[in-house]
Amino acid sequence: MTKPLRLGIAGLGTVGAGVVKIVQTHADLMTSRTGRTVTISAVSARSKSRDRGVDLTAYDWEDDPVTLATRDDVDVFVELMGGEDGPAKAATEAAIAAGKDVVTANKAMLAIHGQELAEAAEAQGACLRFEAAVAGGIPAIKALTESLAGNEITRVMGVMNGTCNYILTRMQDAGLDYQTVFGEAEALGYLEADPTLDVGGIDAGHKLALLAAIAYGTQVDFGAMAIEGIERISIEDIEQAADMGYRIKLLGVAQMTGRGLETRMSPCLVPATSPLGQLENATNMIVLEGDSVGQIVLRGAGAGEGPTASAVLSDVLDLARGIRVSTFGRPAGELVAARSAVSTAPAPFYLRFALVDKPGALAKIATVLGDAGISIDRMRQYGHEDTTAPVLIVTHKTTRTALDEALAAMDGTGVLAGAPVAIRIEEV
Amino acid sequence: MTKPLRLGIAGLGTVGAGVVKIVQTHADLMTSRTGRTVTISAVSARSKSRDRGVDLTAYDWEDDPVTLATRDDVDVFVELMGGEDGPAKAATEAAIAAGKDVVTANKAMLAIHGQELAEAAEAQGACLRFEAAVAGGIPAIKALTESLAGNEITRVMGVMNGTCNYILTRMQDAGLDYQTVFGEAEALGYLEADPTLDVGGIDAGHKLALLAAIAYGTQVDFGAMAIEGIERISIEDIEQAADMGYRIKLLGVAQMTGRGLETRMSPCLVPATSPLGQLENATNMIVLEGDSVGQIVLRGAGAGEGPTASAVLSDVLDLARGIRVSTFGRPAGELVAARSAVSTAPAPFYLRFALVDKPGALAKIATVLGDAGISIDRMRQYGHEDTTAPVLIVTHKTTRTALDEALAAMDGTGVLAGAPVAIRIEEV
Repeated sequence: MTKPLRLGIAGLGTVGAGVVKIVQTHADLMTSRTGRTVTISAVSARSKSRDRGVDLTAYDWEDDPVTLATRDDVDVFVELMGGEDGPAKAATEAAIAAGKDVVTANKAMLAIHGQELAEAAEAQGACLRFEAAVAGGIPAIKALTESLAGNEITRVMGVMNGTCNYILTRMQDAGLDYQTVFGEAEALGYLEADPTLDVGGIDAGHKLALLAAIAYGTQVDFGAMAIEGIERISIEDIEQAADMGYRIKLLGVAQMTGRGLETRMSPCLVPATSPLGQLENATNMIVLEGDSVGQIVLRGAGAGEGPTASAVLSDVLDLARGIRVSTFGRPAGELVAARSAVSTAPAPFYLRFALVDKPGALAKIATVLGDAGISIDRMRQYGHEDTTAPVLIVTHKTTRTALDEALAAMDGTGVLAGAPVAIRIEEV
Repeated sequence: MTKPLRLGIAGLGTVGAGVVKIVQTHADLMTSRTGRTVTISAVSARSKSRDRGVDLTAYDWEDDPVTLATRDDVDVFVELMGGEDGPAKAATEAAIAAGKDVVTANKAMLAIHGQELAEAAEAQGACLRFEAAVAGGIPAIKALTESLAGNEITRVMGVMNGTCNYILTRMQDAGLDYQTVFGEAEALGYLEADPTLDVGGIDAGHKLALLAAIAYGTQVDFGAMAIEGIERISIEDIEQAADMGYRIKLLGVAQMTGRGLETRMSPCLVPATSPLGQLENATNMIVLEGDSVGQIVLRGAGAGEGPTASAVLSDVLDLARGIRVSTFGRPAGELVAARSAVSTAPAPFYLRFALVDKPGALAKIATVLGDAGISIDRMRQYGHEDTTAPVLIVTHKTTRTALDEALAAMDGTGVLAGAPVAIRIEEV
């Protein structure tokens, strides 16, 4: 039997407490599987006195996570504090400088500082792993990095924020508007302290940036992502989309185009009968597409104590087994700065707008679309309100750039009442 | 740069040719990801002259796979011949004896001889890996072995034979009976030379036996599995099940019960709205349940050149990266002979039978079920044929053992026309 693998855990919120519980309850099982015992040397958190439902008396307490991270009796620093800078980054850097392996669930820190941290780890011969940072218990990082290593990745997609998916499916099921369901989610404690992280697509965007780096061998580049949240999704769009056989999801997509790497996090229409379309409530889904493997769909809980702690242990037990993989699936020095492509991958779009009720109005819109080279797949005018008529259009494939030009021109026709809604239809 | 990882590939059917193609087309990509170049030293197959759509001139040819397996210039023996004994087993044993790592897609060989082969590999310090043997391109083995290593596994389920799922969904979609669709599948070349391997549940059973060994740390025991194929599924059952919100799937289930390890491969009813219920055509699905992670669902192509070759490369590239995991996820010597439990996990059942048309007939059946301790959740008599009346019953949870007793007693009542149909309803 080799020496135990000794953890230092910083951050004892839901996930940290979950990790401690697994180490305590499944010690023998994990030793049997990996041939190495996992122990905890010390822990650190903001409050020492808070009751977390786990017995911490056997572990040393450190007030300072940096001190914890560099202790001689810590082999793996487990960073579960969160926050892109501050103590999490300082302690991670200190651990790496001391040659420790690091396991983290911190998507924000890696989305912003992933490249420099990966390079630092590599220079020290240390591992920096983050299965828990993306889609909770779903083995997205391992599947993409290891299982699909023989594939050229053609597209990565994901519904990676459970709160957004909860809000969208709840709107649809109950026929409620966004503000009402947002209020419900807030009352239930589903939202981050800054809700923009959830509903603005930032949290999910962080995760997509990490997947894209692995998929395409590029330096993680959160800043290059086109991000749009779900705040402007109306119940009317959800219902119209459903009527045409679609669901609206906050969908992340990363794909390499002829012009560079395109990463988008935005509401999209997907077919109601597809796995993504069928995904309800707070469940997450990752879709990986490779040139040989085709489409692999992974579904599970994207957050919560058990699933996220399970993912942390996945990384820890890899280290116990001697499995050492580069942070983003290849040496950090070989990751290239991606040329960033914006909105070049063509897709059909869903358009909804209110037309003022006068002769020739629809013809003007159709002309504008035609002038922009956008052809119409389906169109319908439904109902009628006082002086305006709501119109739905599904276009044939076009680019977001061409569409934005058409939208600007539509604005100049004077036949629209209010701004049109435009939502991408992602073929899944 | 370390030395190349040199493969010897035995078996150049669809999958073998697919592996060669990936090695040829993605050499640089794979080197970049793993830090090690993968090369092919030699190949072997039954016919040297057959055109396989790949250029093999750069590789040595061996007529005898045993000779191939033991060549000095082979680091990894890739076994893609198939067959539980014969050349596949002989060459695998020879490779292991020579200290080579082995990657195989051979579910039959491992389901029957897995324990002895795993022990032999371990004694030699060799790796024996088999991602491609279960569910094609779906990373089922890696997810269960590595990603869920911190979980006590509570249940493993899977739809792992694409042909059976194709037949069942085609029957439902087209309203056709089993024999007609079986004939279609045969004409399309979807069936194994011995179709019983597919429709009899044996192929899928082999895969389930491998998953169960990993999940529960038990010696693989294909003989202990209760196997029932889809040959007796009628279009009437598919339609009645659909009418009640269910789909019929050939479902493998492995779970540890108080009485031992229960492994079953049989047609089951699953909710139409569940991921398993929504699975159509030849796609496969693996459902892994752990005490921390909850339910993880993996979906993808379970067969075919690209997906299966991708899984072979997953194992090969793990070895290139220095990832070495025990065959069944823990040392072969620690795998225990499982106590085998048969039909002890309770479930509701679907029953369909034709009742002779005389007073008190239904009461007799209800009495028999009550005497066996089986209570009725739903019952309905539908339609009417000449002298018999078809009846459907959904029971509350009971065991297969209790049900079988009740079925025997029903036979003695003299009010049944023909044998009843009984199908388990698996709660997913």
